[in-house]
Parts: sequence; structure tokens; C-alpha cells
Amino acid sequence: MTGIRALLEPASIAIIGASSNPDKPGGTIFSQLIRGGYQGEIFPINPNAKEVMGRQCYATLLEVPQQVDLVFIVVPQDRVEGAVRQCAEARAGAACIITAGFSESGPAGRDAQQRLLEIARSSGLRMVGPNTIGVINVDHRMMGSFIEFPNWKNGGISIFSQSGIFNGAPMLEWMERPVQRPGVSKVVAVGNKIDIDEVDFLDYAETDPATTAIGLYLESVRNPDALFSSLSRVRAKKPIVVMKSGRTPKGAAASLLHTGSLPVDDAIIEAGLAAAGVARAYDEEDFIGALRALATQPKPKGRRVGIATTTGAFGVLATDHIANEGLQMAEFSADTLATLQTIFPGWQAPANPFDFWISVGMKGSEAAHTIALEALFADPNVDLVFGMLLVPKSADFPNFGRMMRRLRQTYAKPCVLLIMGDDTARRWSQEIDGDGIPIYNSTRSAIRALKLLADATI
Amino acid sequence: MTGIRALLEPASIAIIGASSNPDKPGGTIFSQLIRGGYQGEIFPINPNAKEVMGRQCYATLLEVPQQVDLVFIVVPQDRVEGAVRQCAEARAGAACIITAGFSESGPAGRDAQQRLLEIARSSGLRMVGPNTIGVINVDHRMMGSFIEFPNWKNGGISIFSQSGIFNGAPMLEWMERPVQRPGVSKVVAVGNKIDIDEVDFLDYAETDPATTAIGLYLESVRNPDALFSSLSRVRAKKPIVVMKSGRTPKGAAASLLHTGSLPVDDAIIEAGLAAAGVARAYDEEDFIGALRALATQPKPKGRRVGIATTTGAFGVLATDHIANEGLQMAEFSADTLATLQTIFPGWQAPANPFDFWISVGMKGSEAAHTIALEALFADPNVDLVFGMLLVPKSADFPNFGRMMRRLRQTYAKPCVLLIMGDDTARRWSQEIDGDGIPIYNSTRSAIRALKLLADATI
Repeated sequence: MTGIRALLEPASIAIIGASSNPDKPGGTIFSQLIRGGYQGEIFPINPNAKEVMGRQCYATLLEVPQQVDLVFIVVPQDRVEGAVRQCAEARAGAACIITAGFSESGPAGRDAQQRLLEIARSSGLRMVGPNTIGVINVDHRMMGSFIEFPNWKNGGISIFSQSGIFNGAPMLEWMERPVQRPGVSKVVAVGNKIDIDEVDFLDYAETDPATTAIGLYLESVRNPDALFSSLSRVRAKKPIVVMKSGRTPKGAAASLLHTGSLPVDDAIIEAGLAAAGVARAYDEEDFIGALRALATQPKPKGRRVGIATTTGAFGVLATDHIANEGLQMAEFSADTLATLQTIFPGWQAPANPFDFWISVGMKGSEAAHTIALEALFADPNVDLVFGMLLVPKSADFPNFGRMMRRLRQTYAKPCVLLIMGDDTARRWSQEIDGDGIPIYNSTRSAIRALKLLADATI
Repeated sequence: MTGIRALLEPASIAIIGASSNPDKPGGTIFSQLIRGGYQGEIFPINPNAKEVMGRQCYATLLEVPQQVDLVFIVVPQDRVEGAVRQCAEARAGAACIITAGFSESGPAGRDAQQRLLEIARSSGLRMVGPNTIGVINVDHRMMGSFIEFPNWKNGGISIFSQSGIFNGAPMLEWMERPVQRPGVSKVVAVGNKIDIDEVDFLDYAETDPATTAIGLYLESVRNPDALFSSLSRVRAKKPIVVMKSGRTPKGAAASLLHTGSLPVDDAIIEAGLAAAGVARAYDEEDFIGALRALATQPKPKGRRVGIATTTGAFGVLATDHIANEGLQMAEFSADTLATLQTIFPGWQAPANPFDFWISVGMKGSEAAHTIALEALFADPNVDLVFGMLLVPKSADFPNFGRMMRRLRQTYAKPCVLLIMGDDTARRWSQEIDGDGIPIYNSTRSAIRALKLLADATI
């Protein structure tokens, strides 16, 4: 197996620097691969051990009795070059270099990193790292990370990242606790991005059947024109969100220290992403929020948002955000206005945002929620449905989850929710867990997700 | 008792429209006041009941054998005028009109609201509402809200709001779950803002000893000059954050329907708040996030942020946000750089953001966290400390809470945290709960809190 497939779908794995000590990266990554349930062969490589966690250990990669697709390198900095040389000689397909201390650490490190590249080029070995947390394929249960984050949920999101942070499932969990964990397919953390880059990843993700939404976290762009061209092509098939940091001079300086990334004028990035029609996220909340929408929501027909809310103030705040984010407030159809009037007092005309707090008191909570939300799902003038539901105990009803599932299945229309309150709100959130209706934590994060969904798909 | 004190610190309360039915607002508000633990007298008023929840009920307010400070009005719309007339005749100090259907509902409602005002003016009665959820004084355990939100935490935050949403403790809880509930003193939801307004509230909060941080959520501004003048004066004594919605034309239209608020040119608001030196929030996450910082953090000496992080990517993202929010990246002192070098590899020079992930491996997690964070607290070039802590199980240590308490007590310097991970991160968050170190959910929300803290205090 060769190229990025050897990295992401290896039939066999070796770990140079494998250890039985779970406190060492070479111990963590080895035990994570085994405990994660990876089904291929796993070979520990360590000249100082006969076995690692019960498996026969080899002194060098060359002694392994079969060709290895992917090699994790977890040895000290001064032994990485020897390890890469072994990979090249053994004709391994790909290497993931965990060890740090290369281009991010100054001129000597840059030279050392360049030597690794020359060795690999001579044999066709492809690499990620150095200075990375690892590579994960949740579909194959390959948990190739030296950070112990066991609780991955499988799904359609694939991420390329110049940072290890998105290899951390708890990071994702933490942002969406306690329910609605994003489902993940592949995560490649490339660290210093010695070789395999964002364009390679896009080529792979384009045809990977398990990937339905693509996220790129970039600190550098090797070849902006190649990236924009690849984005334009892949974007027509699968939605993409790009988070490029180092937007400001100080941010670019921080990025240089983090991953050795040289700055690219952010105006070029901004214009190129806009021309390619790719959504851009500005921080981790944006990025994960957008990916959750991209992975679960149908393509909207336009940018017109219909809001049903049980808090008037949030309706106003959301309306301001919608205008500032380049989305539009839908003009409800005559049918919708007539339907909404049936749950509204005679002295008040329904409008968008539709604040139906009073309807909950007038008609009962279940009827009010069902009629208000279904009217927006059914309205041809509404492209995106945003429900902001304040749920005190008095507004509870038992069938919230069933009602939302029915609307979600009946109408092929994107919908996001805010669900506010304590025990009742938690139960409502749990009731729709797994049903493809993303819940956000604030008016802004929900509107940003709708905006990025529109940017990525329309 | 007269004026806004009668509203916020009444010695006695009556509820016109009190009911024994807990599903009616007049039942909810009555039972909330009793179960909340309010210590003054509570008189139910309802001509159709002899008693309400075991208390003697009066047909009208005039039959109550003593003067009443605060009267909640929870009767249907067409009986509100009579209830206000009773309040005026009985010389009540203040009325809180829960009932909706006034200026937010069109011309007839506006006329009806105007008549209430004329009745009140003749007697000196002060009013909030109509169309409000109520008034809360957590210090006095006066839970005067018709929404059942029992779990208030007492503290220094006082809020004036043209919406009921901030009367909902779960709303606050929800934003900060599962720990770090903001401590609240008073919340006034004024609904249509018939009478008592933001300037009255500022006058009150200025001298209220329990209030240490002030939040205003405004949909309208009655008298911009009076507001800005009052903000300038009070801001010198207590930090203030203002969230004014209806910033955009569509948002202003939504606000007109929500609380009958007529638009004010947002450029006037923006300039006036800036001139008064008041922080401005743009949504509920901003607003609560800022109040949590204002209520717990000392005044920063400047706008220079020092970042200690165990995720390099978030350091870069935060650096971008800092530049875009008008904060500065601190230049670490020589002492700080020397201290940080002791937990850093020789091939790498420490910088801001200080990414000390590698130090956790080199020196152990407790030493790395303690040395990195304390160096920033101690550095005279750092005005604001931002710790971004990624905490997998392998980075756990038992004394995180004790360490943070010591730093918080030793150095009079603002600090905010992001704590990411699963069980370990939750325990760390719990360990510092109540210690005045706010935790945020994203790089952006933390940076926004630091920015608004600086805006409100420097």
C-alpha cells in the first residue's frame, strides 16, 4: 500500500519506539492501537525489548517478517533520522513522526527535518509530522494517537489538522457536552507538515466513501493556487470548512513557533477561499459547529432563515447576527402567517422571528411547538429553520423527540436548535441525540453554523 | 417605601390575580415567592377566592390592612387598568405588571399602556412591565417571577433587562454548566418599560452595596444623553456591560414586535457607550461571560494578555482574536523568560503564547502548570492571564484547585481559563468552583470576556 492510503487505511502498523511503559508516548500509542480494536497486524520495534505488552518486539523495522504499511516513530529527536532510514529501506508506505524538535525549533531543526524529507523522497515513503499527536481512522478503529482519548463516535467528519487538538475526542466532547458528540471518520494531525499536506488530504477525502464533511485546520499553506483549485473541485462533491489561523501578524508569529509555519498574506487566503466557495471558520467553536451542521444537514436552497423562539430577546439578538453574517430573514408565506395566527392572540400579527412564548400558554406547549416549528419547515420561503427553545418545567411535553424526528424526516430542510433550561432541556436534548438535529450553545454559534453551512453548500 | 426601592427591596408584597392553580402565572408567582423564602408579608388579591395556598385572600388591594410596597399584577389584559387604579389608590410603592398585550401589540395597546402611566403618575406609583416575567432579589430571596426557576446562586451581579430571559436561572446555568453558576443579586425585567428605566436602575445599583457588577440588556433607550451621563458616573464606581440589541434594521424591527421598542440609530449607541467607557456585549454569551469576569476579577492594569497553553493551535487562534479585539500580546519580562526556560527544551525559546505541552512531559504536569501559570501571574508585563489547559488523564495531578487558589490569592491579577478534556477536566473545573476564576467554553468567549473586562474597568 502506498501514499496517503498507507497512512489512513494501513493493513499493518509498526511502532518504532514502542514501549511497555504506558506513561511514555511509545507506550500510550501502542496500547491505544491495541485497545482501540485495530484489526490489522501491529509490530513493536525497540532494540531494548524482547516483547512489548505481550507481543514479539523487533530490534529494527527490517526484521519484521512482512512489509508494513504505516510506521509510527516515537523515538528521541536524535534517533528519528535512523528510524526514517529504516522505513525507507523496508519500503514502508507511510511514516507518522510523533517526535518534536524539528522545524518548529529553529535552524538546526529545519535542517534535520529537510534531511528526513530527502531520505523519504528517495524511496517513495510518505510522511506526516514531525511534532504530531498522530493519525486516527475511527472507521477502522485505528486510534493512532499518543494522547489517550478513547471515546470516539464514528461518523462522516474527516479532519486534516496542523495541530493535535482535533485528535482529542474529549475536545470535541467538551464542546458539545453532554450529548451530540460529532461523529468522526478520519483525523490526520500533520504537525510540521513535512510532506503530506492539505491537497493530498483533499484528494483522498474526495473519494473516501466514509467522509461526508471535510474540515481543514491550517497554519500554513504550501501552495495556495493548488489548494484553491483542489478546494473548488472537491467542494462540488462534499462540503468543506477551512480554519486558517495566523490571520494577524501576532497570530502568524505564534504559528511559526507552534508548527514552524511561514505566514501567507491573509488577504490571499480570504479571497481564495471565497472564490472557491469554501466556508471559513475563525476558531474551534466555529469549526466544530460548522462540521456538525455539514455532517448532518441537507443542502439549503438559500440563505433565508426562519426563527421560531420562546424568548423574544434571543430572537432580536439572532436577527442582528443574521444581518451581520450575510444571511437573510425569511418573509413568511401567507399560509405560514395564517397557520401561526391560529396560535397567536388576535391583537398580534405573527412575524419572523416568531416569538411563540405566548402560544405555549394559550394552546399548550406541545401544540405550540409543533405548529410553530412545522410551519417553518413547510414554508417554501424558509431555507434554514432555527428553533430557540426556552424550556422551563412548565413547558415540558413528552413527545418532543418524536415530533422533531417527524419534522426532520418529512421536510428535507436544514434545522438547528438552541434548547435552554435545566432538567427538561437536558431531556429534550437527549431525546433528539443521534437524529441529525444539531444543538448549539448560543445564538451566535448557531447562526455561525447556519452561515457556514450556506457558504459550504450553496 | 417609594420608587425603585419599593420594587427591589419591598417589606410587603401583594399579588393581584393570585391563584391556587400552579399552572396559572398568578399561581406560579405566588408559590415562587413563598417557596423562595421571601421574609416579608405576602397578600393574595382575588375577588373570587377566600384564600390562596392557605393565606387569607382579599378582594381588592384596598382591603389589605397595611400599606403594600410592591404589587404584582397578573390579571387578564382588560383588568390591568383597574388593578393599577387600586395600586394608586392604596398608595402602593411600585407595581410589576406581568400581563402582556400593551404597546407590543399595536395602537390600541399603546393607548392602554399610556392610560396606565397617567394613573400611576397621579399617585407617585412606579411601575415595571407590562409584558414582563418579573423582578428578583436573590439577596432577599424574593423570587418574583412567573417562570419557575428555583436554583439561583447569590452574588454581586445585578441585571436590568428588557426581556425576561435573564430572570431564568437555568438560562444562566445552561450557559455555564455544570459548574460556575454566576452569582446574582437583583434582576429587573421591565418588559415594555412603561416607567422605571435603565437610568433609574443605574441610580439604584450605584449605591446598592450588594451589587458589584452591572448588566443592562436594552432594546430601547428612552433618553440617550441621560443614559450616557449616568453610565459615565456609575462606571467610575462599578463595572458595567451593556447589551443593546436591534443593532441592524431587521433586528430593530424584531425588537419593536418584542417589547414595542422604537429604534435608536446604533451609531449613537456605539459612540455613546465608547465615550462613557462602558463595555458592549453583542449576544447573551458575551453578556453573561463579561458579567462573570466583572463580578469576580480585579481591575487589570492594562490590556496585555499572557497566554499559557497546552494546545499550540488554540494559542494561535487566541492570538488572532486578541489582535482583532484590540487587546495586546504581552512581551514577557526577562525573569519570566528565564523561569519558563527551566521547563522548556534547550532548542526552544519560550514566547507568548507559551505552549508548555512539552513541559508537561519533561517536568511532570503539576510542576509544568504551576511554573508556567505562576510566571505569568508574577510578570509585571502581563495584565491579564489566560490559561488554556488541555487535560487528558495523563496530565492529571491532585492539587490543581489548591495551586490556582494560591495564585489567585497571591497575585491581584485577572485570570480566565479554558479547561478541556473529559473526567479530569470536569474535576479540575469543580475544584476551582467558587474561587473566582471564570472558565469559558471557547477561545473566543474567553478573549471576549477579557476584552469586555478591560473595556469596563480600565
